[in-house]
Amino acid sequence: MADQNPTGVVMLNLGGPRTLSDVGPFLRNLFLDREIIQLPAQERLGPFIARRRTPKLQRLYQAIGGGSPLYDWTTRQGEGMVKRLDALCPETAPHRFYLAFRYTEPSSEHALRQMAADGVRRAVAFSQYPQYSCSTTGSSLGQLWRDARRLGLANTFQWSVIDRWSAHPSFVRAMTAKVREGLGSFPETERRDAVVLFSAHSLPRKVINQGDPYLQEVAGTVRDVMRELDEDLQYALCFQADVGPVSWQGPNTESVLEALGKQGRRRVLIVGIVFTTDHLDTLSEIDIEFAEVARNAGITEFHRAPAPNDDPLFLDALAQVVADHLRSGDCAGPQFGLRCHGCANESCREILNPAHPYRQPPLHPQR
Amino acid sequence: MADQNPTGVVMLNLGGPRTLSDVGPFLRNLFLDREIIQLPAQERLGPFIARRRTPKLQRLYQAIGGGSPLYDWTTRQGEGMVKRLDALCPETAPHRFYLAFRYTEPSSEHALRQMAADGVRRAVAFSQYPQYSCSTTGSSLGQLWRDARRLGLANTFQWSVIDRWSAHPSFVRAMTAKVREGLGSFPETERRDAVVLFSAHSLPRKVINQGDPYLQEVAGTVRDVMRELDEDLQYALCFQADVGPVSWQGPNTESVLEALGKQGRRRVLIVGIVFTTDHLDTLSEIDIEFAEVARNAGITEFHRAPAPNDDPLFLDALAQVVADHLRSGDCAGPQFGLRCHGCANESCREILNPAHPYRQPPLHPQR
Repeated sequence: MADQNPTGVVMLNLGGPRTLSDVGPFLRNLFLDREIIQLPAQERLGPFIARRRTPKLQRLYQAIGGGSPLYDWTTRQGEGMVKRLDALCPETAPHRFYLAFRYTEPSSEHALRQMAADGVRRAVAFSQYPQYSCSTTGSSLGQLWRDARRLGLANTFQWSVIDRWSAHPSFVRAMTAKVREGLGSFPETERRDAVVLFSAHSLPRKVINQGDPYLQEVAGTVRDVMRELDEDLQYALCFQADVGPVSWQGPNTESVLEALGKQGRRRVLIVGIVFTTDHLDTLSEIDIEFAEVARNAGITEFHRAPAPNDDPLFLDALAQVVADHLRSGDCAGPQFGLRCHGCANESCREILNPAHPYRQPPLHPQR
Repeated sequence: MADQNPTGVVMLNLGGPRTLSDVGPFLRNLFLDREIIQLPAQERLGPFIARRRTPKLQRLYQAIGGGSPLYDWTTRQGEGMVKRLDALCPETAPHRFYLAFRYTEPSSEHALRQMAADGVRRAVAFSQYPQYSCSTTGSSLGQLWRDARRLGLANTFQWSVIDRWSAHPSFVRAMTAKVREGLGSFPETERRDAVVLFSAHSLPRKVINQGDPYLQEVAGTVRDVMRELDEDLQYALCFQADVGPVSWQGPNTESVLEALGKQGRRRVLIVGIVFTTDHLDTLSEIDIEFAEVARNAGITEFHRAPAPNDDPLFLDALAQVVADHLRSGDCAGPQFGLRCHGCANESCREILNPAHPYRQPPLHPQR
């Protein structure tokens, strides 16, 4: 087993500044990513906006301890995952995990260099966003392939892709356990009155209208979790983090909280249904901002279901998702090959040097 | 059994003109319904718009045989349902069904008068829209309660409500069987290439943003049906019937068809995931309009999964949904009591003279 080349599992995620001095570069990279934001004269306007927003974001990170915990949580998740994978799939052991963050270090370049040094040949690009969106998973995959080509590593690894796993039963079980844990914050007699508010990161309407499947993925997770929970509770799906001048998918979480308070609702459990670790969206936006909105609206009991972080059930899920994928013999699930109908990204849905047969969708739609 | 008062099952639906001369009144009622359309000077502007649209709609109905088949299909569904219910639930037999259409005859007034004549005491308001929306089920229920009060029948029946059933396993099974039937239209070797396009009636974005749960319900149905289908097929959710000046939830079905064709896709199975019977949206919009869009886009194999209509599996589902409801001892599912956060309808989520304890949400939110 130790003689085999290790199987590399690349954990793709957004990234987050670990210290306050990382906030500037993080924002700069974010505002330069044309796969999620299109600006005029982006090369100059992006860094300009990033500089202007840096002090405010630094203050927000200061308030949650001076940086993003994403690196630490993802590292623990990776460790727990590969340990389980070695036991689950001895045939592909040893498994090693590599972090590839889109906007902070460790970047996909870092991951690729390390994989080459470790002698990895078979590699899995494992999106840490359970619900696929072109603006998250799509953007991370694009960067991974670009970096591999740039570094002369285009043929070094044989790739497959886990692009979405929101319907995987072990993920649904793990998320449901966190909802149950959150419900435990209410006294037993008060649980029935609580509204379970699933809050997801929003997407611009334009992206939804182009066919991005994120909404379907998120709503599907909500359906699955409520069925697994099997309790007669009221719930709703809403969307947070909609900033800037564009039109976003609603309903907006803050508006929902304000209105529920006005309707006389006093108990809300909020569930960050798309977040697999704590970061700014949970620790700051939900726990600080929304908590204040809720308090002002008269919601006296406002709790959040914990993020999965290093919950053993969630580590089981990560390992099971990869194990099922490795054994499927598929290069990606069927949905990965379906491009959004409004897609204008020529390298969308690509898999570099695929480990199994993969028929890439046509690259140049005649639009 | 025959000595008992019958249990009334009121099948709420939109209605549709049975003949071309019914088109005018149908449109008039539709454009007067403030629960779905808000117009300035609606009492005059509504009928005016209705008159202007009548000839075009008459032509569309002419092309599908001169009228809506909704009455016939719903009647067959009701007959199949109560026959099964009498066997499933002898304790509440005999069961009788009553059609209550929102914009055509037979209206809820007609249903209520007939129920009173039949000696019904226990009544179930059974929405024929599996996925709840205030603009469909909500509007029908409001009309039912208004008519009961107006006719002096407010205390004649003890009511409970089936407001949504998109997650009921027997419904999911029945819908999945229709998708499988639709897939049978493709030669076995071509099925794998087909895109399954779930097309739902759209809703204005404003309604979604106010918290209408329709989107969540529809996407949940798609998730359930794809899991039950258990085939590695590509699928997408899109929305049809978005007309007029307001902004609608996308993506738009026609745009998706056009783009899929341009991407080189040749096979599409369209599934009217919110339609339980054939009517204009399936027979005209999908089978005639979209078929032409698809043909022009180069989609050579365009099929539609049949609507449930009088499929025995679907009649089983209708009966099972009602049987489970009658035996639950609940006046409505938990979600019915959760008002949309942006709701301005004072009588929303009411249950008239409830058969079981029902705590109505506060009627006058301080907005």
